[in-house]
Formats: sequence, structure tokens, C-alpha cells
Amino acid sequence: MDRSVVTQKIIEAKVRNGMKWSDIAKAIGESKEWVTAGCLGQMTFTKVQAEAAGKLFDLTDEEMAWLQIVPYKGSLPTAVPTDPLIYRWYEIVSVYGTTIKELIHEEFGDGIMSAIDFSMDIQREPDPKGDRVQVVLSGKYLSYKTY
Amino acid sequence: MDRSVVTQKIIEAKVRNGMKWSDIAKAIGESKEWVTAGCLGQMTFTKVQAEAAGKLFDLTDEEMAWLQIVPYKGSLPTAVPTDPLIYRWYEIVSVYGTTIKELIHEEFGDGIMSAIDFSMDIQREPDPKGDRVQVVLSGKYLSYKTY
Amino acid sequence: MDRSVVTQKIIEAKVRNGMKWSDIAKAIGESKEWVTAGCLGQMTFTKVQAEAAGKLFDLTDEEMAWLQIVPYKGSLPTAVPTDPLIYRWYEIVSVYGTTIKELIHEEFGDGIMSAIDFSMDIQREPDPKGDRVQVVLSGKYLSYKTY
Amino acid sequence: MDRSVVTQKIIEAKVRNGMKWSDIAKAIGESKEWVTAGCLGQMTFTKVQAEAAGKLFDLTDEEMAWLQIVPYKGSLPTAVPTDPLIYRWYEIVSVYGTTIKELIHEEFGDGIMSAIDFSMDIQREPDPKGDRVQVVLSGKYLSYKTY
Amino acid sequence: MDRSVVTQKIIEAKVRNGMKWSDIAKAIGESKEWVTAGCLGQMTFTKVQAEAAGKLFDLTDEEMAWLQIVPYKGSLPTAVPTDPLIYRWYEIVSVYGTTIKELIHEEFGDGIMSAIDFSMDIQREPDPKGDRVQVVLSGKYLSYKTY
Amino acid sequence: MDRSVVTQKIIEAKVRNGMKWSDIAKAIGESKEWVTAGCLGQMTFTKVQAEAAGKLFDLTDEEMAWLQIVPYKGSLPTAVPTDPLIYRWYEIVSVYGTTIKELIHEEFGDGIMSAIDFSMDIQREPDPKGDRVQVVLSGKYLSYKTY
Amino acid sequence: MDRSVVTQKIIEAKVRNGMKWSDIAKAIGESKEWVTAGCLGQMTFTKVQAEAAGKLFDLTDEEMAWLQIVPYKGSLPTAVPTDPLIYRWYEIVSVYGTTIKELIHEEFGDGIMSAIDFSMDIQREPDPKGDRVQVVLSGKYLSYKTY
Amino acid sequence: MDRSVVTQKIIEAKVRNGMKWSDIAKAIGESKEWVTAGCLGQMTFTKVQAEAAGKLFDLTDEEMAWLQIVPYKGSLPTAVPTDPLIYRWYEIVSVYGTTIKELIHEEFGDGIMSAIDFSMDIQREPDPKGDRVQVVLSGKYLSYKTY
Amino acid sequence: MDRSVVTQKIIEAKVRNGMKWSDIAKAIGESKEWVTAGCLGQMTFTKVQAEAAGKLFDLTDEEMAWLQIVPYKGSLPTAVPTDPLIYRWYEIVSVYGTTIKELIHEEFGDGIMSAIDFSMDIQREPDPKGDRVQVVLSGKYLSYKTY
Amino acid sequence: MDRSVVTQKIIEAKVRNGMKWSDIAKAIGESKEWVTAGCLGQMTFTKVQAEAAGKLFDLTDEEMAWLQIVPYKGSLPTAVPTDPLIYRWYEIVSVYGTTIKELIHEEFGDGIMSAIDFSMDIQREPDPKGDRVQVVLSGKYLSYKTY
Repeated sequence: MDRSVVTQKIIEAKVRNGMKWSDIAKAIGESKEWVTAGCLGQMTFTKVQAEAAGKLFDLTDEEMAWLQIVPYKGSLPTAVPTDPLIYRWYEIVSVYGTTIKELIHEEFGDGIMSAIDFSMDIQREPDPKGDRVQVVLSGKYLSYKTY
Repeated sequence: MDRSVVTQKIIEAKVRNGMKWSDIAKAIGESKEWVTAGCLGQMTFTKVQAEAAGKLFDLTDEEMAWLQIVPYKGSLPTAVPTDPLIYRWYEIVSVYGTTIKELIHEEFGDGIMSAIDFSMDIQREPDPKGDRVQVVLSGKYLSYKTY
Repeated sequence: MDRSVVTQKIIEAKVRNGMKWSDIAKAIGESKEWVTAGCLGQMTFTKVQAEAAGKLFDLTDEEMAWLQIVPYKGSLPTAVPTDPLIYRWYEIVSVYGTTIKELIHEEFGDGIMSAIDFSMDIQREPDPKGDRVQVVLSGKYLSYKTY
Repeated sequence: MDRSVVTQKIIEAKVRNGMKWSDIAKAIGESKEWVTAGCLGQMTFTKVQAEAAGKLFDLTDEEMAWLQIVPYKGSLPTAVPTDPLIYRWYEIVSVYGTTIKELIHEEFGDGIMSAIDFSMDIQREPDPKGDRVQVVLSGKYLSYKTY
Repeated sequence: MDRSVVTQKIIEAKVRNGMKWSDIAKAIGESKEWVTAGCLGQMTFTKVQAEAAGKLFDLTDEEMAWLQIVPYKGSLPTAVPTDPLIYRWYEIVSVYGTTIKELIHEEFGDGIMSAIDFSMDIQREPDPKGDRVQVVLSGKYLSYKTY
Repeated sequence: MDRSVVTQKIIEAKVRNGMKWSDIAKAIGESKEWVTAGCLGQMTFTKVQAEAAGKLFDLTDEEMAWLQIVPYKGSLPTAVPTDPLIYRWYEIVSVYGTTIKELIHEEFGDGIMSAIDFSMDIQREPDPKGDRVQVVLSGKYLSYKTY
Repeated sequence: MDRSVVTQKIIEAKVRNGMKWSDIAKAIGESKEWVTAGCLGQMTFTKVQAEAAGKLFDLTDEEMAWLQIVPYKGSLPTAVPTDPLIYRWYEIVSVYGTTIKELIHEEFGDGIMSAIDFSMDIQREPDPKGDRVQVVLSGKYLSYKTY
Repeated sequence: MDRSVVTQKIIEAKVRNGMKWSDIAKAIGESKEWVTAGCLGQMTFTKVQAEAAGKLFDLTDEEMAWLQIVPYKGSLPTAVPTDPLIYRWYEIVSVYGTTIKELIHEEFGDGIMSAIDFSMDIQREPDPKGDRVQVVLSGKYLSYKTY
Repeated sequence: MDRSVVTQKIIEAKVRNGMKWSDIAKAIGESKEWVTAGCLGQMTFTKVQAEAAGKLFDLTDEEMAWLQIVPYKGSLPTAVPTDPLIYRWYEIVSVYGTTIKELIHEEFGDGIMSAIDFSMDIQREPDPKGDRVQVVLSGKYLSYKTY
Repeated sequence: MDRSVVTQKIIEAKVRNGMKWSDIAKAIGESKEWVTAGCLGQMTFTKVQAEAAGKLFDLTDEEMAWLQIVPYKGSLPTAVPTDPLIYRWYEIVSVYGTTIKELIHEEFGDGIMSAIDFSMDIQREPDPKGDRVQVVLSGKYLSYKTY
């Protein structure tokens, strides 16, 4: 058994029972973004969170233990993603990557936006010309320093 | 001559003259995100925008003509970016890619967030524990349909 | 269980029973192009479509549930396809890619032909010098906009 | 000098003079699809076609000779294209590749749609919900035979 | 079950029973080249051929059905083959590729040698300095045409 | 200066003067296959051959010296060739690779067909259903031995 | 001109004049590790540092301006480095990567060692069995948090 | 059975029993860095070490034998690691690779820091601005020599 | 069953019984280099050799038959090997590749050192400064010829 | 200027003057293997060696300085070499890699054969069945140790 077995079991239970991520998130007590990432094998659960997940998905003790182990992260099967929804994000990085770099450096200097001390919020943005997906990313600015 | 020659000339002028993207954006009359992407060779200028850029960067007529030609997009030299700032974005796609996919599908159904009918806003988010980079992405939802 | 298990079961049933995609499409009530893509794990079925498929291929409730889950898309095992029929399409993209780009931009400006709001029709085109395959692709034009 | 030098010269002349592919095609006397591919270095010109191009783009005798040499084909800088317009075509191959394979085999048997004895027609398809790009591909069916 | 299961079963039967490809070819009634490719999962059998194979290798009805389904072609596990015998052929393409291109174009004009309307014959060529492998490839010439 | 400079100069002279490989081969005194490969930078000329080439293409002494230096071989810019004519050969290796391996081993045992002690002959094969390209490959069989 | 031109000029001056990185570091006033990375185009200089470098390497004003622009980072020509000294570091990541991950997680929980808020110190470690290279890496621990 | 089976069994036992690498290291009698690498399948155990591991993880004789066999090393599933913690180390190699090379050569001459005669020590470095990870790498300097 | 099953069984038996390759080689009657390569699935056994192996490793008739089938060669999981011992050999090819090429061509002319008519001998070379691995490679020189 | 410029100049001088590596080696005073590698940009010259090379190839002071700088090593343009002579060495690593690993480990334990403390000797081995290339590789054994 490893973490991927638990991930697979959670996904199967979710499909079988027609559960929604937003409901799962409420039961576990964190944002839907963090909880989904966790259930998909990218985040580490606390004991309390793992037990909440265990109740929801009918997990064994060993499976709950795996949820508390830091996973080997990376959720995609190929370096350039083939799924159209995920590819659009890769395309944003490809087309706008140097733009993002220029603007963050102009505002902050030489450093990065953290992908660790980071949160994400995905919302529907109603629009008469067709609703939009709005995503807010917030990451701590970390500065390169001289030494 | 091709578009990359104009891009290179713009970047050189910007460094030589110590210009800022936000000022360049004001002169051209669009958001700093779009204008930076355009100056880096990813967007197509209108005649008016190209002439404004021409004045700023002292471009020839031929160079202004190239700004109005749709470029071959993609701003990065490798499929997996080596620059740490841009890599963090690639990492977000790698770690959270399936999460983003799940949550957009849960809210909207089978479709994508457009990377074409799309805008981006990058801001400093003051924070006592260290300022944060806040990025708002907004893309039209496009639905797969049966036929 | 995941979607690929259902795809595999459908293909096996089709071979075992000597079914045709055009007949399957009629039973499910959409075009043969969409239905084939769906059965091969690339599209999402509605409840009604999933039940029609379930009757045809003798699927369980859980399998029908998987047909209604948005799949991770991408149907090929390698980035450059090895199968000769599919490679010819990749070759068209490789040889004519820049041509397609130039002509769509000339007619429409900077934007893309959607691969989401998209349909495809494959027909036999009788020809005395040897029949031809005729494929009509139709995708909504989406424009890059300034912001 | 090689073919890419002539391609580059043609593109520069086109941008400098604000020419359109459809007009260039009329002057050379073939479809806009074939002529654009030819001017972008993918097709071989006859003497007459090369001279027509020579007049349009002010080419030397040596440059016209290169237009009549079969080029090394392939118009894209990377195996997976980064340009969004061209990527959408790659995505069609990735998502629908196995569908196209199934339907051509069902109609014709084991064989391919030729990418050599092939033509393409790109048109605007007016649509009240937003115009569409319509592309018709026509390739001779070639059958695998036993021997 | 899919085609690879049948391929595997055929190879195992061949090894277990010490059969030769040339004998198998006679039983199936086509050249040893085509039959070997077919048994290795690259070609599509007719009903008669599949039944002959079924008798030889003791196949079930379902397995014979799979032999009549067009397979996803491509017989090698990596893009650059590691097996020395097969690599030598890749090396011929690598070293002589542009030579082959020049000479076919010189004789025929812009077009290709078909790999579909194609046959191959592999023979021992006795030679006092050491026997040689002689391979004759014959493919229909297909011409690029203007349109 | 290196070999590629000489190759480029030879190709340019050939295009400028409208020379044919078969005539060049006669002047140099070897088969058209070997001479074309040599002129494209894949083979090593003797002094006599280099001087014959020197006369044909108006080469300097230094350029003739380079023709006599063993080149770094490999004539293609990518591991999987993009040019349709050359790709068809790669496809033959991909589809028939295991077939070729089986049949050579069946006839000769464990070993390879040499790509060094090797010759190639490319001819037009007239055919009422459309002429064919016939290629004869002949390579010495080399056996793996125990030691 | 871009940053790589300045990097090249600095390296040439260093070789021509037989300078040492440790002396250059003293002149610029930071550690030899940071200064070397900066001179090799990976770090951003302040105005004072750039002027010190300008004096040492005889740089123009424009070249000093480029030293103050955040560079596109990544110093290696291939994803897997070919240089033996640098490869050994890649090998450490390959062999010990999961070990490092386990031990940092055991000590700190789910998070990373920053490569931005990071310093490095390279020293000779005298040893009678042969001197050793001792490298001390120090990076801030950054924790993944729930949200 | 191969080494990976034993590795998997050890990891499962560790998770199930909530063991710590530092405790396991004490039981086996080497540093936590070496023991973790060994348990993850990268190092070779002596008979005594294997028996200590066997007692801890309840291994069979055959499993203990595998721990004493030199493994095929390399602990990561992709050439560029996707896990953020491990990627940071790859990023250090990418950004600082040429710096490390320059400084080791400046101090020692042409040679490498061994990754074989090598040790590693990972410690928490308390810091009021946030604790740091401190890693000390020590590798024997090996010199290229003339011969 | 295929060859890899037999390879796996042989390796397991060797580990379980603590056998040595040099003893296995004696029992089979060839050099330890050839026998090891054969047992690892890279060489073809004669009937006598297969039976000797069968006795040593307790193989079935079918398994012995597989040892006499020419295998698909190539023993490494990745194009650039990750194992440090094997990587050092890849590094020799990378660093000294052009040197080896120059010196063989200088001594022999244009041709290769065969990797088929080839043998290898690996010995310990005692040395007071630390023992050395000495490897003698001997391959027939094969000459490119004109035709 | 960088090292590759000096390498190119040396190779050009060697071709122009018809020099041999063995003579160059004598003039520089080391083995032909080391000297060739050095001239091809893989090794570092001492001052004396650089001056000897400078005399032979008519190098400037700056060029001789570059010969004394440790180069970025790796002599091949692609990860899998396309040149047939060099490929055969890659093939040896691919086919015999696991064999070499097994036998060195059997004789020495867990460790590697150094590619740094390493020498190579390439000789003609006369043989009535055709001369052979004999290569002796000698590398120090380096042991993994526990710590």
C-alpha cells in the first residue's frame, strides 16, 4: 500500500456516492482547494483531518496513516499536460511566463512568489457574455538576498 | 527582421533608459499585464498601440509593422522552465493541476477556462508577515458540447 | 476502478459483438464522432447517454457513473504518435501548422479556432481515382482581447 | 543560402508591404492554402510559380531556384507546438486521434488518409453566436494490403 | 483483452512449439514479412487468415476477432530503438535519410515513397566474404500536388 | 571552417547550376547513393574523389582537405524526423522493426545486418497502377559470438 | 545586448587577466559564492555592486545597467548536465533525493528548504586520505499550510 | 522479488508502526542519512545491518539477502523531479551549477567532488526569523590527471 | 511468459542461493562477461548452454526454450542511466566520445569498432594507491567502403 | 572568445596541415588519448602543455590562457549519439551496462570505476580474420562507505 492506493480509493468512493468536493471540504474543515489537493494525494493531513476523511470515505487505520505521510508531489502524468483544461494553465505559463516574471520583479525586486506559502481560490464570476472562471492566487514574496 | 528583433530592441531600450512596465503601459493605454506581454512578443498591437510603442522605443516603420503581425507565441526556452520564478508557476500547475480540473468541472461541468478570452492582474498584497504577490486570473468558461 | 476500465470494457464488448460505431452512435443519440470519442474515454456522458451506453455494453451502475465524470483527456500514448493513421494528422500539424496560423489570422485577426466549442464530421468522398476521406472541422473563433 | 533564407525574405516583404496571402495566392495561381504553405517553405514551386513569386517579392534568380528545390519539411520549432492556435490542432490530434482512427477504419478498413495526396480549405463560417472557423481536409484513402 | 494479449499468446505458442515464421506464413497464405508483422500485432487479418492463425496457435473466438481489428501500430518501446539489429535500421535513416530524400526527389519530384502501399522482402544473399542480408523495399510513389 | 561549410557550399553550387546527383556521381566515379551521402557530409572522400568534387564545385584546397576527414555522421535535425519522405522510413522501422528482427534472426541467428559494410540502390520501378520506389539494401550479416 | 553578453565579457576578462573569483568577491564585497553566481548571470547586482564590477572588468554604463536587471536564471545547457563535476551534484539529487525529502519532513513536517532564502559555502576540508570538498547549504524552512 | 519489493515493505512497516528514521538509524548503527538512503533502496547493507533491519521490519531471509545486493541506484521517477522539496535541490544545481564548478576548480584544479566517497548531514538550524535546514555535504576531491 | 520472466527467475535464484557470476560462468562454459550478459537477458544461449543454466537455476523446459530465443536487447531503463556505476561509462562516452572517434579513424580510416564481433574482459588491477578496475574491449574494425 | 573557439582553431589547423594526433601528442608530451581529448576541449592544459600547443597551432596568448581553464565537459551534441562509431560505445553501455555493474560489484563490492582517475589506451590488434580495435580502460575503484 502507498498513498496512491488511498487516493484511488477516495476517488472511487466519491464517484460511487456522487459526493461533491465542496461538501467534502466542509466535512474536513478546510477550503475546497486545499481539501481537493489533499484528497488527490498532494497535501498532508493532520490526524483530525485524516479521521474526518476516514469517516467520509470509510478508510482503514492504515489508510488514514498514509494520509498523514508527506506525499511525493506532482499530479500530472506528463511534463506537458495533455488534458485541455490543465493545458490552458500550462499555456498561460508558456505565453505569460516572462510577463509575470517582469511584473513581479518590477514591483518586488529579485525573488519569487512562493508556491508553498500559497493559497488559491476558484470562483464562478457571472458575466452576461458567458460566465467566467476567476482564480485568485496568493503567494508570499520571497527575496533573493546577497550573502 | 522578425518579431524577436523588435522584442530585443524594446527590452534593450527599456534597460538603457531605466523605464518601468507600468509607465510603458500608461503610454500605450492598456493594462501593465497586456502591454508587457505585447512588448515581450506575445500579443498583437493595433496601429495606434504600435505607434505609441514606436514613439517610446524609437522604432522604425518596419518595426512598428511587425508589432501588428500576430506573433508565434510561447515565451520560454524549455518545456519545463528553469527560471525559479516561472518554475513556481509550473509547479502550481504540476501540484494543483488535477485540483483545478476537479473544482472547475464541479462548478461548471465539462469544459475549460479560456486562456484566450482571458485577463490577468498582478498586485502587491501587503501583509505584516511579509508581503504577498496576488494574482487574479479571469478566463471565460467554455463548455464541451455534444453534436 | 477508473474511467479507463470502462473504456476497456466498452471496446471489448464492441469487438466481441461485432458492433459498429455508427450504430452505437444511433443508440446513444449523438453524432458518430462525439459518441466514439466518448466511448474512448474523452467525453462526458449525460445520465441518459450513460444509461443508453449501459444497456448496449451491459455496464454496472458504477461503470455508468464513471461515464458521467469528466475524464482526464488525451488519447495517445506518446507525444509524437507512432500509429501511421494518427501520425498523418500530426504531420499535417507539423507541415501546415504555420500555414493554418497565417490564414486564420489573416481572416480573423489574433485569436484561435476553439478545440472545445468544436465539432468534426468524417465522411467518405467517392472519387474515381480512389475514394477520399473528407473531414470537416468547425470550431468557434475566439479572439485575444486587450485589457 | 538555403530555402529558409528565401522564406525569411518573403515574410519580410509581405510584412513591409502589407500584402495578403489571398492576394499572393491569386498572383501565383493556386489556392491560398497551398501558396501559403509554399511561401513558408513547405512546398515546391514550378518554374512559372517561382517566377510569379519572384516578381511579387523581388527575388533573385538564385532565390527563385531555391523555391523549385524540394524543401526539408516541418514548420514548427518544437514537437509539441507552443503557439496557442497551432496547439489547438495538436490537441485535436491528442484528444480525437483514436476517434479519427476508429471511424476511418470502420468506413474504409485498415489504411490511412494521405497527408500527401491531400488538400485543405479554410473558411469563415458566419454564426450568430460568434463566427466559426471551418476547415475541410480531403486526403486520399490508402489501403494496407497483404503481399 | 486487447490485441497485445493475442500477440503475446502467439509468441509464446511459437516458442513453446519451436515454430518458424516461414512455416506460419505458408499456413496463413501470405509472405513471411506480412505474416510476421501481423502476428506481432501490426497488421489486420481477414476472417480466413484469422481462422488459419487460430488453428495454428489454438486461439479462442474472441482472440480471432481481435486479429481482425485494426491495431494501434508501432512495435518499439522507445523512439530511438535500443536493440542493436533494429538500431542499425534507425542508423540508416539517420545517416542516409537526406540522401534517400535527395535521390527520390531527383527521380520523381516532390512526394514520398509510401509506407502503406508498401512491401518488403528479406533474403539471404550468399557471399564468399560472409553472407549478406538483402532487403528489397517497394513503395508506391505518391506525389504532392498543387490545389 | 568545418565539414558543414563544405556541405553547404556543395548544395548551393548544385542548386545554382541545376546539377543532378546522378551526373555528379558519374564525375566522381561511385554510385549515386554513396556520392550523394558523401556530398551531404556523411562519407569520407579519397584524395582523388575530393579533387573530382573540387573541380565540379569549385572548392579550395582547404575545402578538399575537409572532404577527406571522417565526418561526425547523422544527417537529421531531430530524433524523430519531421520531413514526410524521411518519416516514412522511420515509420517502417517503427512498424516493421520487430518483424525485421524476427526474420533476420530466423534466417541467420543472433546478429545484425551491418549498416557499415552496407550498400543501397534506389530505382524507379515502373508500374501501371503508379510507379514505385524500389530500394535494395544489402548489409553484411555479423554474428554475435560467445567468448 | 542582453545579460549573456555581459557574462561572456566578464569571463573573458577574468581569463585574460588571470583573476580569481575570491579576489573578485572581495572587490565586490560579498561572499565568493554569491559573486560568482552573479558574474555568471544568475544574480542581480545593486548599483554599487555593478559599479564595482564595472571597474574590475571595464564595463560600459549599459553593461552595468544589465547587471542590475533580474536575469532569466538557469546556468546549464541541458536538463541532465554533461559536465562531470556538475553531474555529481545531479547524481546526489538522483540517488539521495528521496532520502533528503524523508529527513527534512521527519524533522520539520510538510514543507521545503528554500532555494531562494538560501546561502552556500564551499571550502577545502584537509584530510590525510586526500582533501575533501565541504559544502554547507543553508535554506529557510518553508511550511505548507492549510487554508 | 527484487529490491523494490523490500523497499516497499520497509516503507509500509514504517508508516504502519509510526517509526522514525532517526530511531531506525540508531537500531542499524549508522547515520540517519545513510540508513534512510539504504532503506529507500540506494545503499547496500552488510549482513549485520541487514539482520538489524530484518528484526525491525520483520523481513524474511530472502528479503534480508536482497538488502545485501548492490541495487540499481536512482530514486526519482523523472529526470527533472516534480516534488517541490526535491525540485529545490535540482534548482540549486541548475542555478548554481556553474558557480560550484568555478569555485571547486579555483580551489582544487580540474577534478570533481566525489558523490561516492561522500557523506551528508542534515540538521535543523534554529533561527529567530524562521528555522533553517542546514545540510553539510562532504565529498573527496578527485583530480583529473594526465597520462 | 517472455524472456524477462526467465531473467527475473535467474536473478532471484542467484540471490537466494548466494551464487557468483564467475561460478555460473564456469558451469555454463563461457567467460563471466558473456554469461552474465546472457543471464541478464542480452545474449542467446545454445541448447547446451540453456540446459546447463536450467540445471543451475532449476528452469522448466519452456524457460530453457526462451533462453535460446534472440532477445530484444538493451538493459537500461532510461536513455541516460541513473545508476552511478553505469553512468560513469556513459560519461566516458560523453567526454571521450570524440577522442575515441578521432583516434580510431586516425589508425584505421573511416569505419567503426564493432559492438557485435566484440568481447570484453573485466579484471581487478592491484595498485598500491588503491586497486583499479581494468577493462579490455576488443571489437573488429569494420570499414565503410565506397560502392 | 571561449574554449570552443580554441578547439575549432586547433581542428582547422590540424586539417589544413595534415597533422596526426599521435605526433601532436608527442609534441605536447602526453599520451595520444589525453592530448586528443584536451585538444577537443575536454581536458585542462598546464602552462607548459599550452605553450607547446600554442607553438604547434600558432595560438595567441589569450588562446593559450583558455587551454589552461577547466572546460565545461561533454563532447557530444545529443544525449544518444548519432555518429555510428560513437553510438557503438553507447550501445555497449546500453547492452552490457548491467553486466559491467554486476561483475564490478562481484569483484569489488558496492562502488564505481572512476571516470576521473582514469586512463584509456586505444591500439590496433592485428588479427588474420580482420584487425581489431583494442581499448584498455583503467579506472580507480571507489567504494561507497557507510557513515
